[in-house]
Amino acid sequence: KMREITRRQPGFLQKNNSLDEKSRMVGAFKESAKNQMCDNSERFMRAETDFSNLFARDLLPAKNGEEPTIQFLLEVVEILTNYVRKTFDRSTKVLDFHHPHQLLEGMEGFNLELSDQPESLEQILVDCRDTLKYGVRTGHPRFFNQLSSGLDIIGLAGEWLTSTANTNMFTYEIAPVFVLMEQLTLKKMREIIGWPNGDGDALFSPGGAISNMYSVMVARYKYFPEVKTKGMSAAPRLVLFTSEHSHYSIKKAGAVLGFGKENVILLKTDERGRVIPADLEAKIIDAKQKGYVPLFVNATAGTTVYGAFDPINDIADICEKYNLWLHVDGAWGGGLLMSRKHRHKLNGIERANSVTWNPHKMMGVPLQCSAILVREKGILQGCNSMCAGYLFQPDKQYDVTYDTGDKAIQCGRHVDIFKFWLMWKAKGTIGFEQHIDRCLELSEYLYNKIKNREGYEMVFEGQPQHTNVCFWYIPPSLRSMPHGDERREKLHRVAPKIKAMMMECGTTMVGYQPQGDKVNFFRMVVSNHAVTKSDIDFLINEIERLGHDL
Amino acid sequence: KMREITRRQPGFLQKNNSLDEKSRMVGAFKESAKNQMCDNSERFMRAETDFSNLFARDLLPAKNGEEPTIQFLLEVVEILTNYVRKTFDRSTKVLDFHHPHQLLEGMEGFNLELSDQPESLEQILVDCRDTLKYGVRTGHPRFFNQLSSGLDIIGLAGEWLTSTANTNMFTYEIAPVFVLMEQLTLKKMREIIGWPNGDGDALFSPGGAISNMYSVMVARYKYFPEVKTKGMSAAPRLVLFTSEHSHYSIKKAGAVLGFGKENVILLKTDERGRVIPADLEAKIIDAKQKGYVPLFVNATAGTTVYGAFDPINDIADICEKYNLWLHVDGAWGGGLLMSRKHRHKLNGIERANSVTWNPHKMMGVPLQCSAILVREKGILQGCNSMCAGYLFQPDKQYDVTYDTGDKAIQCGRHVDIFKFWLMWKAKGTIGFEQHIDRCLELSEYLYNKIKNREGYEMVFEGQPQHTNVCFWYIPPSLRSMPHGDERREKLHRVAPKIKAMMMECGTTMVGYQPQGDKVNFFRMVVSNHAVTKSDIDFLINEIERLGHDL
Repeated sequence: KMREITRRQPGFLQKNNSLDEKSRMVGAFKESAKNQMCDNSERFMRAETDFSNLFARDLLPAKNGEEPTIQFLLEVVEILTNYVRKTFDRSTKVLDFHHPHQLLEGMEGFNLELSDQPESLEQILVDCRDTLKYGVRTGHPRFFNQLSSGLDIIGLAGEWLTSTANTNMFTYEIAPVFVLMEQLTLKKMREIIGWPNGDGDALFSPGGAISNMYSVMVARYKYFPEVKTKGMSAAPRLVLFTSEHSHYSIKKAGAVLGFGKENVILLKTDERGRVIPADLEAKIIDAKQKGYVPLFVNATAGTTVYGAFDPINDIADICEKYNLWLHVDGAWGGGLLMSRKHRHKLNGIERANSVTWNPHKMMGVPLQCSAILVREKGILQGCNSMCAGYLFQPDKQYDVTYDTGDKAIQCGRHVDIFKFWLMWKAKGTIGFEQHIDRCLELSEYLYNKIKNREGYEMVFEGQPQHTNVCFWYIPPSLRSMPHGDERREKLHRVAPKIKAMMMECGTTMVGYQPQGDKVNFFRMVVSNHAVTKSDIDFLINEIERLGHDL
Repeated sequence: KMREITRRQPGFLQKNNSLDEKSRMVGAFKESAKNQMCDNSERFMRAETDFSNLFARDLLPAKNGEEPTIQFLLEVVEILTNYVRKTFDRSTKVLDFHHPHQLLEGMEGFNLELSDQPESLEQILVDCRDTLKYGVRTGHPRFFNQLSSGLDIIGLAGEWLTSTANTNMFTYEIAPVFVLMEQLTLKKMREIIGWPNGDGDALFSPGGAISNMYSVMVARYKYFPEVKTKGMSAAPRLVLFTSEHSHYSIKKAGAVLGFGKENVILLKTDERGRVIPADLEAKIIDAKQKGYVPLFVNATAGTTVYGAFDPINDIADICEKYNLWLHVDGAWGGGLLMSRKHRHKLNGIERANSVTWNPHKMMGVPLQCSAILVREKGILQGCNSMCAGYLFQPDKQYDVTYDTGDKAIQCGRHVDIFKFWLMWKAKGTIGFEQHIDRCLELSEYLYNKIKNREGYEMVFEGQPQHTNVCFWYIPPSLRSMPHGDERREKLHRVAPKIKAMMMECGTTMVGYQPQGDKVNFFRMVVSNHAVTKSDIDFLINEIERLGHDL
């Protein structure tokens, strides 16, 4: 029985961190009652502090370490809040580019080398400033380089709290709140996918590639459970199917898990990067004729480069016909499920056996936050459990089905849930929907702006399905050149040159790559809620400014 | 060419975030010069703010969002700094235990459910407080439950910065400073292992289980590179060796990678939990006679339960004789390499082909921070590369050998290096050594205190090699009971009962488990630098107080 002291705090009620009667009897807590009456309400005061004579050893748990600890953390917070402010300030640069050798040589006293002796906290604070100074502002409204971008303030606060709590997801015992938050949030995600009652299972994993790897593992366990014990030699030659445009992690999973990457069969896509279902069926039949056993099909919801959505329903029909596992890699496109306007692009996802969905991409959650969701309950546990006695004791006082560690391929698992849960609380489902719709509108704006603009060619025709807008910028010198190898070679070098200049100027960043027989082109994406139309305009102006004389 | 403005800041020089001439010509940065002259030196002021009418949408990048953003973050920081202060305060509890159903029902307004509509920032702040309140203080001086414990202030500051920078390790392009820090730190770790010039390769991975999985993958690639392309059917029946006391992740890797867990052969240990080398050799010979191909041996440096160090040199001799890959799992014991007094326990580690070493365990670095280190350069790349064109363009303007993404099985990879690098800067190598030596001294103190104390039995004889002290507490009612099944059954229930009471009281936490034919015993470990002898005394008093009447 707990004795509880309830006490008013500004604006809300809070239960106190009280001690039970038994503990009091030990007599080790003489001061606790006194402390409990006042410590919560103490507010910090920032004071000018000379950090040049302070060292890590002077901080907590050192005797009298409390004041320097608070002052040091507040100084760090000042550095961070200044960084946050500048991140959203368009008059600052996206990055201050230097080559590796320049940073390694030491920039104005920023020395990366580690030494035997400690450095003062003053130097540590300088190191923090320099680390941010020479980094890349991935939250800047003109950073378009990656599928993950933006700096969500609620998510950031969530990450600060997560690192302060410094715990691990493997048991309810040491992460009770986070384990429950994960469970509730994953159930909500399964409901949104459309699985009945949100049933099934799921985990947050360290990124989409690992989530995709889980899907292949679970599929193998479903059809050939003996592989867990006996290895791949207990199964026939198994083949996996995924499109030419899909993420390389499916092939990587094939290599890692012992299938072999040549048994990951690439499917043809249409000109928009979507799987051609007839090609899937033809290749299944072909594999069976060769005596191989088709196991698994990956349908991508939002490809990395084109942002294409494979036709899930058509693929699901084929999977049902041939009894194959259907995985949907929605790492990038899964976020569109939050939008009533755009979720039709994932129609059929409720028929998938497993889904990868990375809130750290389109939903703007800080890195890392990737979920692997599985329709069949218990299969993650069956696939991965090893029942380590030292960690998962069956004789605990609480319901140990809440211990998640044995479902994972990791032992320790980082707390990725809290920032996402907190953002969901703060924005509501509706807030994510608005974010998604807004990003899609901005890319539509870009598409409409350049589709007929002089000097631009679209990589594929028609309005993009996701925020990916893929295009070539053709400098004036190439515009009248006849199509052919020379033009191709020259055009191939345009995007890298413009990108290099962008980075050296530090004004903006956008990705480029070749794809199949197409030479280097820009891939523009929007996932940052700080982006406005003016930033899209800026990007186009910048490409033209830097590329005009190429 | 950059134009640089150098300007004095209190205590150090800082180069300004200036813009290049070309950018100025666009005219988009009219205000930049003015801003650059003053924004760095603005200091935050905390102001009483009414958060009940503020929402996530009012924060940056919202118009006029700067002030609410800073005030909200400062309010969060106050919650966090209060938590930090209490973490080190022995008059507070380690945890405030509740069962899952209690937390799910909602504790005094702490509602875990997600909703469609946003909540006010006031509610978000309450949620932050409640999340910490119902969690477990893993940094508390009386939290002994896990190999990872403690709350290092420098490490914490490092994590706050890492999440503010919110980037990804896959390319130098978007994480230039972190990529270089990782490279330098991993080289230093390889030097400490004793590989010539610190040559080789390495990565931070999401935990020791994944690091161990990398070691098996790389071994397979070294001896049977065709498996990457053709799958496990291209190799003979391969077997892996690891001890009965080793971490379950080796077996898990066997299952995941397609070897099958029955091909992970468990080696016998002596009464202290150390591998018996003769048993390894006998089992290699036996496997070969059966026609299997021995591939890989794991030697554990610091087992999870006993803290035992396998005799690496003896095992290395056998690996050389039979041409096997030698991996050392130093997830827990690797930290002892930092101590001149204790590193002899890992003698022979320089002969390993690969090493797992988790700074987030014995070195007190916040979760997660685990390294997989490999002696042969280039083999991680060979094993894992898939050459995705959209991410790893060969035609970048910088030296792309700094892009690390294609060496990993992940695509995106969390920044785990910065907190560790910053701690190393702040403590020096010598600071880690002092930390290790101190933790070992404390466990020696515990061992000496209980080895002859009434009511205690040690699980194994002699001074432990690591900080693990394994013991039974025998309540008075069992002390005169004859050894036999009844006593065993009763003793098996003692540790779980005491642990449950500890958690309900919230006064301390320590782990227990059975091992082989040994019934449940306590495993005490020390890795938290806040622990003192008085905390060890407290634990023993608490066990006796709670267990006396069992």
